[in-house]
Amino acid sequence: MNNTPFRFQLIHRSKKSRARVGRIHTPHGVIDTPSFVAVGTNGSLKALDNVDVTGLGLQLMFCNTYHLMLQPGTEIIKAAGGIHSFINRAGPIITDSGGFQVFSLKYGGVHEELKSKGTKKLSNSIVKITEEGVTFRSYRDGARVVLTPETSIQAQKDIGADIIVSFDELPPYHMPPHKLKESLERTHRWEKRSLDVHLANRNNQALYAVIHGGLDPELRTKSCQYLTGLPFDGFAVGGSLGKTREEMFTLLNYVMPQLPDDKPNHLLGIGDLKSLEHCIPIGIDTFDSSHPTKAARHGLLLTKQGNKRVIASGNASVFRPIEDDCTCYTCQHYTLAYLCHLFKAHEPIALSLATIHNVHFMIHLMADVREKILRDEV
Amino acid sequence: MNNTPFRFQLIHRSKKSRARVGRIHTPHGVIDTPSFVAVGTNGSLKALDNVDVTGLGLQLMFCNTYHLMLQPGTEIIKAAGGIHSFINRAGPIITDSGGFQVFSLKYGGVHEELKSKGTKKLSNSIVKITEEGVTFRSYRDGARVVLTPETSIQAQKDIGADIIVSFDELPPYHMPPHKLKESLERTHRWEKRSLDVHLANRNNQALYAVIHGGLDPELRTKSCQYLTGLPFDGFAVGGSLGKTREEMFTLLNYVMPQLPDDKPNHLLGIGDLKSLEHCIPIGIDTFDSSHPTKAARHGLLLTKQGNKRVIASGNASVFRPIEDDCTCYTCQHYTLAYLCHLFKAHEPIALSLATIHNVHFMIHLMADVREKILRDEV
Repeated sequence: MNNTPFRFQLIHRSKKSRARVGRIHTPHGVIDTPSFVAVGTNGSLKALDNVDVTGLGLQLMFCNTYHLMLQPGTEIIKAAGGIHSFINRAGPIITDSGGFQVFSLKYGGVHEELKSKGTKKLSNSIVKITEEGVTFRSYRDGARVVLTPETSIQAQKDIGADIIVSFDELPPYHMPPHKLKESLERTHRWEKRSLDVHLANRNNQALYAVIHGGLDPELRTKSCQYLTGLPFDGFAVGGSLGKTREEMFTLLNYVMPQLPDDKPNHLLGIGDLKSLEHCIPIGIDTFDSSHPTKAARHGLLLTKQGNKRVIASGNASVFRPIEDDCTCYTCQHYTLAYLCHLFKAHEPIALSLATIHNVHFMIHLMADVREKILRDEV
Repeated sequence: MNNTPFRFQLIHRSKKSRARVGRIHTPHGVIDTPSFVAVGTNGSLKALDNVDVTGLGLQLMFCNTYHLMLQPGTEIIKAAGGIHSFINRAGPIITDSGGFQVFSLKYGGVHEELKSKGTKKLSNSIVKITEEGVTFRSYRDGARVVLTPETSIQAQKDIGADIIVSFDELPPYHMPPHKLKESLERTHRWEKRSLDVHLANRNNQALYAVIHGGLDPELRTKSCQYLTGLPFDGFAVGGSLGKTREEMFTLLNYVMPQLPDDKPNHLLGIGDLKSLEHCIPIGIDTFDSSHPTKAARHGLLLTKQGNKRVIASGNASVFRPIEDDCTCYTCQHYTLAYLCHLFKAHEPIALSLATIHNVHFMIHLMADVREKILRDEV
């Protein structure tokens, strides 16, 4: 860590779209945007070690406060000297507020909630939302945990990521309008409280606000107006983004121009290739998604020719890399035939090798996109 | 691969015991003995990639013919140009004959068989032993597989390891004396047939015989006499070695002096620290065991101060390496606290990091032992 203050540098805005190239300076290094942010929930990109992750060129890693609070606990991370030291990562890290996990506990995952049309409530979700915050039970030991703006920010201070996120509620897609309005107003109060705690002890961290308002344009505008009026360091777009990609694109096209040019923005939990293709021209800077790493562990490889299943007819004797011109460690050292064998034999290293390829793919895809934006081709 | 013929070089015999230091030259490099041989059943040390394994300094890797025949199949490995090319390993490899797995199918594992006092037969073991060989069903697809000296050696030729092992039966501890004698005689005929197939096409490979005879000294002597009279390149000690370590030490003290000085020997399936400590002074050259790698995956670390559980009281805040003076990748980059967290969070990389430490430990332990033998301290 150095004493570089957090700073966003807008390098170029495309002449063809709202796509932009920038650079986020953090105490642990720079993030060239647009950037893919890999998810390392527990302080580890599943199946990769952090030295290798740095070697892959990953500039920003996303860790989950909720999970880290429950295991190993923030006291341990603080005692270790912070998350970078605890997990041995030299590069920038962002943590979330825990709000997303509260939503998941209450309604199940985003997809489940959408499918159930809002009728599904998890039977064992012991979640209480009050003005103060949220109460839930630890999935580890059943202990009662209270998460408030103050405790979430304090947890994120103890963890010590470069970028932290203010505490919010993630209302489901099917929330009735008056409830959504109530939720937004409470979220704004929570975010303001988050900011107050943060400003009392900056700790060389940057705090992002989360823009809410669901699919309601008026509420989204209200959220942008309120939150951009406060001294947050950046803005994440959260909450329900719609049932389809088209709804999301429409919403983002509406929201993004309302965010200031001189601060970075982040799209929470979106990182599939189709979405990236459309969201980058709308001006998104960073995207976090567990899709590329999760897909890898399920034997789905990202390639310039589209997705490729490791276990597929014919692959058993493809004595060439996944992609001939790929420069990743996996493609430089192993064949698709061997990878296919490792997956079939349930060898744990298969997960690592596939993950390396997919993360490398995402990093290089984003580097290419940045070049294209600089040439006004995106 | 180079054209180095297989050769054993006896460097020093201790003045204190029968312990010896030697060097086995193979087409893919040397093996300094005594040496720990890590097990990579499916062509992968579980949770490690083969480039890293070479980096760790592992000189000999043990792969299982039985598993490789069923997945990916020997045709695939042959088509890849052999096992070294298929799995991208530059160093020496040894394969077994498949005999051990036949035994496991029929009687369960060694420990199960010992515990059941020979009464246990696996209900679905469809194993038929005839003069020709052994018939069993693939655990993968139920297909009927016939393993004979000829098919085992041919499979090992297709796989292409540096050292291969002749086809044998592994009679259980509780076999009645007349059955054991019958089994030994059949095994000798199988080993002779293995040798004949091998000599017809050496393929720059070395063939080890397997000394059998259970716990019967007369049968063991008979086996040594018969097999050392044939032009095998080395000798493995197999079959039942007794119920206790003491029985094994007594047996090995009796058997080892009956093997020729100018050829390497191997102890099959033994590699725990206690056994190594006693077997090295008896003159064993190489030991294969999945113990150090399996222990690692179960969170048991090998250290100079004895075994250490990763998940243990207090470890969560040990912000030091597993061992302060350990030079392994894991100890150089991560703390015991982080490793403990990764195990508790069920992160797959935990298995890799623990395995690296244990394999490194074994390799360095053996290097130290070689130094001690050279100084006549063992």
